[in-house]
Amino acid sequence: MNINRTSNPRIVIVGGGFAGVSLAKQLSKQDVQVVLLDQHNYHNFQPLLYQVSTGGLEPDSIAYPIRKILKDYSNFQFRLAKVLEIDPIESKVITDIGELKFDYLVIASGSETNFFGNESIEAHSMAMKTIPQALDLRSLILENFEEALLTTDLQERNTLMNFVIVGAGPTGVELAGALAEIKKGILPKDYPDLDTRLAQIHLIQSGDRILKEMSDKASEKAEEFLEELGVNVWKNLRVSGYDGKTVTTNCDTTFETATMIWAAGVKGANIKGIEGADLVSRSNRIIVNACNQLKTYPNIFAIGDVAQVETETHPLGYPMMAQPAIQQGKQLGRNLKRLLEEKRMVPFIYKDKGAMATVGRNKAVVDMPNFKFQGIFAWFVWMFVHLFFLIGFRNRMIVFVNWVYNYIRFDREARLIIRPFKKKLKSDVN
Amino acid sequence: MNINRTSNPRIVIVGGGFAGVSLAKQLSKQDVQVVLLDQHNYHNFQPLLYQVSTGGLEPDSIAYPIRKILKDYSNFQFRLAKVLEIDPIESKVITDIGELKFDYLVIASGSETNFFGNESIEAHSMAMKTIPQALDLRSLILENFEEALLTTDLQERNTLMNFVIVGAGPTGVELAGALAEIKKGILPKDYPDLDTRLAQIHLIQSGDRILKEMSDKASEKAEEFLEELGVNVWKNLRVSGYDGKTVTTNCDTTFETATMIWAAGVKGANIKGIEGADLVSRSNRIIVNACNQLKTYPNIFAIGDVAQVETETHPLGYPMMAQPAIQQGKQLGRNLKRLLEEKRMVPFIYKDKGAMATVGRNKAVVDMPNFKFQGIFAWFVWMFVHLFFLIGFRNRMIVFVNWVYNYIRFDREARLIIRPFKKKLKSDVN
Repeated sequence: MNINRTSNPRIVIVGGGFAGVSLAKQLSKQDVQVVLLDQHNYHNFQPLLYQVSTGGLEPDSIAYPIRKILKDYSNFQFRLAKVLEIDPIESKVITDIGELKFDYLVIASGSETNFFGNESIEAHSMAMKTIPQALDLRSLILENFEEALLTTDLQERNTLMNFVIVGAGPTGVELAGALAEIKKGILPKDYPDLDTRLAQIHLIQSGDRILKEMSDKASEKAEEFLEELGVNVWKNLRVSGYDGKTVTTNCDTTFETATMIWAAGVKGANIKGIEGADLVSRSNRIIVNACNQLKTYPNIFAIGDVAQVETETHPLGYPMMAQPAIQQGKQLGRNLKRLLEEKRMVPFIYKDKGAMATVGRNKAVVDMPNFKFQGIFAWFVWMFVHLFFLIGFRNRMIVFVNWVYNYIRFDREARLIIRPFKKKLKSDVN
Repeated sequence: MNINRTSNPRIVIVGGGFAGVSLAKQLSKQDVQVVLLDQHNYHNFQPLLYQVSTGGLEPDSIAYPIRKILKDYSNFQFRLAKVLEIDPIESKVITDIGELKFDYLVIASGSETNFFGNESIEAHSMAMKTIPQALDLRSLILENFEEALLTTDLQERNTLMNFVIVGAGPTGVELAGALAEIKKGILPKDYPDLDTRLAQIHLIQSGDRILKEMSDKASEKAEEFLEELGVNVWKNLRVSGYDGKTVTTNCDTTFETATMIWAAGVKGANIKGIEGADLVSRSNRIIVNACNQLKTYPNIFAIGDVAQVETETHPLGYPMMAQPAIQQGKQLGRNLKRLLEEKRMVPFIYKDKGAMATVGRNKAVVDMPNFKFQGIFAWFVWMFVHLFFLIGFRNRMIVFVNWVYNYIRFDREARLIIRPFKKKLKSDVN
């Protein structure tokens, strides 16, 4: 890769997600050369992906060009590149556009869907971790309804109008709620000749409560909200397979559906070259010390979802969500500065700012460290927080306009089949 | 296709563009059963496609779900279907989802890019008639700049940063202007290490003036505007071929570019089954009488771009743009009503409301029947008119917000490579 070295040490960051971007910002105005690598030219605001899948928002308004984030930082370089391998010995990364030497490497490659090795599920279910995947899901949902109109076979129509969401974390819950609102508000208008009662939304959870990362109160309330919206919540039920038509479980219960969304697990998006039980955890995350530093390679760091910071408080690492990623990025920025000044690095301590999830209009749950609340106020807080963390003034404006409109009109207008999904294979572009 | 017949006569409309939609609206509350067929589930506002290609607008905000347009009309059916053939004898259409009988058929299938049989150009150039094509172009432009960063070969970098637009109609002119503004406003910020002077924008016109459908004053002024923006305008130059790297012309001039956009011609999107010199013109448009009726098949009509209404004033038919389509849709709506009441149909007379084109910020040209003006006022008129004709309140809001933002910030933020173009073949989904 033809990037000229400067006199300053070179820090290569892999990944422009929450962790990578917050580190990048922290490193601006430092005497370092920073090269950010990402396979996309945009930063993607994952928490709102489910609104793209359900026609509430345009993809462009929850994504932001990485070059624009970095444009004021003179010591930055961005390259649109997929990192194929890391060579810790030679201190270089191998990418699809060539090799790059580094003095320090920060792996912020995030997480990916975890199918736990179940091939039938991986082959036939939809994931929702990237914008292309979210658009594929949007198309599939709409295509299914169009197809449901064409068949006279009630069994088949059933299959086309059923939705099964596996995994009742925030993503699963929010998606289930959004689909329920589409069923209630949009289907009857758009498809007067379809019996929309057929459209069943099933949310399946292997554990005994939904939103298990959150408080009992939040779980209960969220479940109550989902039931109000007509979502069928299944607990203590484990999905064992899916052939594109029938969902099988660990008991006799089965579901007929053309759309199964897999939101039941993520794993670290570790990169070839970082290997070995002492470096990579069972969830494929990179094991780092409290300064986000790798055991055997002191000039390599990992932050965000891909990093497993082992502490007493969190033996399995911090939760794989935005807050730990943002905080680790900031902290590592400061630590790299200290490192270059030959000062001791300061261990990272996670400030838990709480968690929240929205189920539908006026329906959300918020857990703050010492204040938990649910309902319409929680819903406004949820919206405010998400608008606040969106990058870019224009994006905030557009998302806000859409939300106000959708709220007043009970509508979601971005329901266009722009890239038909059924006509092609699942998006190979992730 | 399982659509139950009602006691009312069935009118089948092929195409949900300007013509089809304005006819559909006109037929609401009539005692007819209307079935609208389109291969997309959305109405696409073509005049703003160029802003999607250049990152100024999201695709979702210039498209509108057809079902939503029709949702209040009880006598309407929509089917997502591609019409493969028309059988005028049997009075039925054959589609990819089955056959459908009609009492009256209205062909409103619009127009498609005309490569005039030049295979090299068709194979390697970009067209811009559909949203997927516009998104492909957006990706290609951005991917070219990313690639330009990677090469040290100046010649290659040149090729990647040059743009050749063939055809100086409104589309070509507006696209050239938008690219020039990107070169000026965004490239230097996004790609500080690229010499953006290399980015040359060429607009090639075979005739001796641009915007030839418009007044001399408009042409001159538009050309002046383009030159102010640094666009190279070539007149009396005919492009003869393109191999993906080099554009050849009818004289010695050649252009090195990785991106040639073909906006030099359209033809009617006629459908198999409507054949014969007396029915189909050289530009593949369906020849109809002043009531938009086919000569040999009195129960079949054609409106919009695909229809060639032969009149003394317009021997080659009306211009292929929104206004004639909208007006013909309205008029045919009234005429079908008269036909069913066994009254004589009223011949269509085109009310020329003028034409307009925008070149860049504060730069537009407007020809009204008895009032022609250019510059900033024309630019505001252009924006107002386009906002007015956009379907949907939300779309108007979103587009307006984007325009205000882009104007104030000299920016276009929707520059995301969401579906990499180079990694795949040209979008087969049109």
